[in-house]
Amino acid sequence: MKSYTDALLLDFYGNLLTDKTRSTLELYLDDDLTLAEIADSENISRQGVHDTVKRGLNQLREYEAKLGLADKFSSQMAIINEAIELIDNNDPEGARALLEALKTEI
Amino acid sequence: MKSYTDALLLDFYGNLLTDKTRSTLELYLDDDLTLAEIADSENISRQGVHDTVKRGLNQLREYEAKLGLADKFSSQMAIINEAIELIDNNDPEGARALLEALKTEI
Repeated sequence: MKSYTDALLLDFYGNLLTDKTRSTLELYLDDDLTLAEIADSENISRQGVHDTVKRGLNQLREYEAKLGLADKFSSQMAIINEAIELIDNNDPEGARALLEALKTEI
Repeated sequence: MKSYTDALLLDFYGNLLTDKTRSTLELYLDDDLTLAEIADSENISRQGVHDTVKRGLNQLREYEAKLGLADKFSSQMAIINEAIELIDNNDPEGARALLEALKTEI
């Protein structure tokens, strides 16, 4: 159920969540605690943690569905990796063309 | 009062606004209509347009204050331009180092 993508979304949109939801998701996604561990440390029920996590993840996914910024950043990252590879393969002009194309996308 | 930055914020966060607020801001910022022109075409008062624009801009700026994604993209753009310049100046290794640094920032 935990995914890299969700952790990325939390990085991007976490500040739009309430403090409580954000900090619970940080424990869950970034610190990789289990629901039971979070429940213990926060002194709430496991079900309560589960609901907060589920609601928070839904909010993050809704933001991404509307804005798509994490997806945009990921695509850019792929292009930057490709440009680095072209430089390594002695094709700086190819890298240059990729970077120029990247600029028009942003 | 209109600024490039606001147009950029509208690009980034426009989908978090209501349809009405977003379309009004698009007329104002992207199509560069005056408040009076928008009022005319939408059949509402100039004051009404003014309020919608002001409220919408405040919302966009709040999103940016919380997330800072437009600022992040702008910084990346500057680094990409710098990398292109280094390639043009026959320093692909310098460009490579910049791009590697950029990856750790995303």
